[in-house]
Amino acid sequence: MRIVTVAAAQLGPIQRAEPREAVVARLMALMEEAHARGADLIVYPELALTTFFPRYYTTDAAEIDGWYETEMPGPATRPLFDLARRYRIAMYLGYAERTPEGRRFNTAILTDREGAIVGKYRKVHLPGHGAYDPERSFQHLEKYYFEPGDLGFPVWRNLGGIMGMCICNDRRWPETFRVMGLQGVEMVLLGYNTPSTNSQKPEEGPEKRLFHSNLVLQAGAYQNSTWVVAVAKAGLEDGHPLIGGSVIVNPDGEVVASAQTEADELLVHACDLDDTVFGKQTIFDFARHRRVEHYGRITAQTGVVLPTEPKA
Amino acid sequence: MRIVTVAAAQLGPIQRAEPREAVVARLMALMEEAHARGADLIVYPELALTTFFPRYYTTDAAEIDGWYETEMPGPATRPLFDLARRYRIAMYLGYAERTPEGRRFNTAILTDREGAIVGKYRKVHLPGHGAYDPERSFQHLEKYYFEPGDLGFPVWRNLGGIMGMCICNDRRWPETFRVMGLQGVEMVLLGYNTPSTNSQKPEEGPEKRLFHSNLVLQAGAYQNSTWVVAVAKAGLEDGHPLIGGSVIVNPDGEVVASAQTEADELLVHACDLDDTVFGKQTIFDFARHRRVEHYGRITAQTGVVLPTEPKA
Repeated sequence: MRIVTVAAAQLGPIQRAEPREAVVARLMALMEEAHARGADLIVYPELALTTFFPRYYTTDAAEIDGWYETEMPGPATRPLFDLARRYRIAMYLGYAERTPEGRRFNTAILTDREGAIVGKYRKVHLPGHGAYDPERSFQHLEKYYFEPGDLGFPVWRNLGGIMGMCICNDRRWPETFRVMGLQGVEMVLLGYNTPSTNSQKPEEGPEKRLFHSNLVLQAGAYQNSTWVVAVAKAGLEDGHPLIGGSVIVNPDGEVVASAQTEADELLVHACDLDDTVFGKQTIFDFARHRRVEHYGRITAQTGVVLPTEPKA
Repeated sequence: MRIVTVAAAQLGPIQRAEPREAVVARLMALMEEAHARGADLIVYPELALTTFFPRYYTTDAAEIDGWYETEMPGPATRPLFDLARRYRIAMYLGYAERTPEGRRFNTAILTDREGAIVGKYRKVHLPGHGAYDPERSFQHLEKYYFEPGDLGFPVWRNLGGIMGMCICNDRRWPETFRVMGLQGVEMVLLGYNTPSTNSQKPEEGPEKRLFHSNLVLQAGAYQNSTWVVAVAKAGLEDGHPLIGGSVIVNPDGEVVASAQTEADELLVHACDLDDTVFGKQTIFDFARHRRVEHYGRITAQTGVVLPTEPKA
């Protein structure tokens, strides 16, 4: 047995006017509870320090800059890192990153028990669009506010296991899980902010959105025999609803814990990393069963190439 | 609307002693029903002409040869092709193939409305093992009886749409669906024979096996915005149980029809191929969202490459 006790720290909404310090106080309250419940690792959502700002279109540079962190930890987040070090709790934290060169990424970091950052991930699969779209019921401007991540999908040894990270829409792409699976990942951590309706299909509501979220998380876990910890920012942010549905999924693809609210809520589960072994050695023993000679299109082409049309 | 009315023709068990002609008579009875219910396409299981023989270990060449077809159609299957042509029903049929050179594959063919074979697929992901294994509660000798397929995952234009094929264990591998998705597939056809218990984990029974089957089919459909038609050979073959659970899955990943028995049973559903368009143009617009520069491991390595160990 290699137990990692994980706390999935779902956040309720963060209103646009809520200051960083108030958000960090909420994160610290969840960490206090995680400590009390014996957690080794706490997982926060994507963009855990701000509202989900890609729903707003603005060209106001000062307003935009206000949503990004230029250092991690910075003055507002240092108390969270100090508390993590005191409790010896490792942490996944999502935030908007602005680099010294002015590049912008949708980022998550992973810390060890000493509160040191051991890994950084930048979201690869940015959904949505890059310019204001009057056709949508609300904006989803991730391609406007961020560059695609440039760090790939690495994994890190932490807490006695092999951990990987991804963010939100990455979970819908089986390539995300497979690249980590090919590095022996035992636990995938991810945060998300998922609108409760599809901005291009208003009749697609929260029930369908939760179904799709669980479907891809469970498939990713099963097909790579890995734990998956998926954590939402949820609820009504200035009138815009986000789904909850944070879950912990075992390497058999089963949901073992799920959030019941759209508020700040902690799920705690003792995950045995050795539960990943059976699948990795049998049905998903990649070395024995994968046939890469037939997978060429997956890396050779980005978009669809249709078969030739029949002759007229 | 581009409606293809599909008949998923689940088969109950085929006992070892059941002659080909008796099996073909069952296939034809299902085709009669499919015709009466307006089907354009009928989908039969994997190895639809014999018992699931990879559970038996033998070196008796005559017995082994008896399980394979050397021509398609052959004398026993020609009446089925004739009936298909008469009813103008296209067909997916799985069978064991022996080539003139003596090569052996787990194969499926696709016919058009004229009963002409327009596509052939040979199973790429062979599960199980290549030599007798005394540790298992029963054998799963696909790697003994077959070579891995050598035709990749092509797609074919048929019935006004783009169709792909795979077989059984192929469905557990997201690469299968993705390679077809990258060719614009609108309907994936597959047959399966899935034992009701895991030969290496006896406590894993039919409920879990059905869960995994649906999970991967639904994820493959959603993540590629394609219809999936999955058809079982089910029930007790000479004492060895196979799951049923044949399903038709829509491009949103939802099960729209599912078998209720482990016997010969027909599911009919009118599938609109235009239902694939929304997903392919939005969240799964591959050209806009995929990032192949980070997928290299998927084709560059077959097995797991672990991250470097920490220094001692």
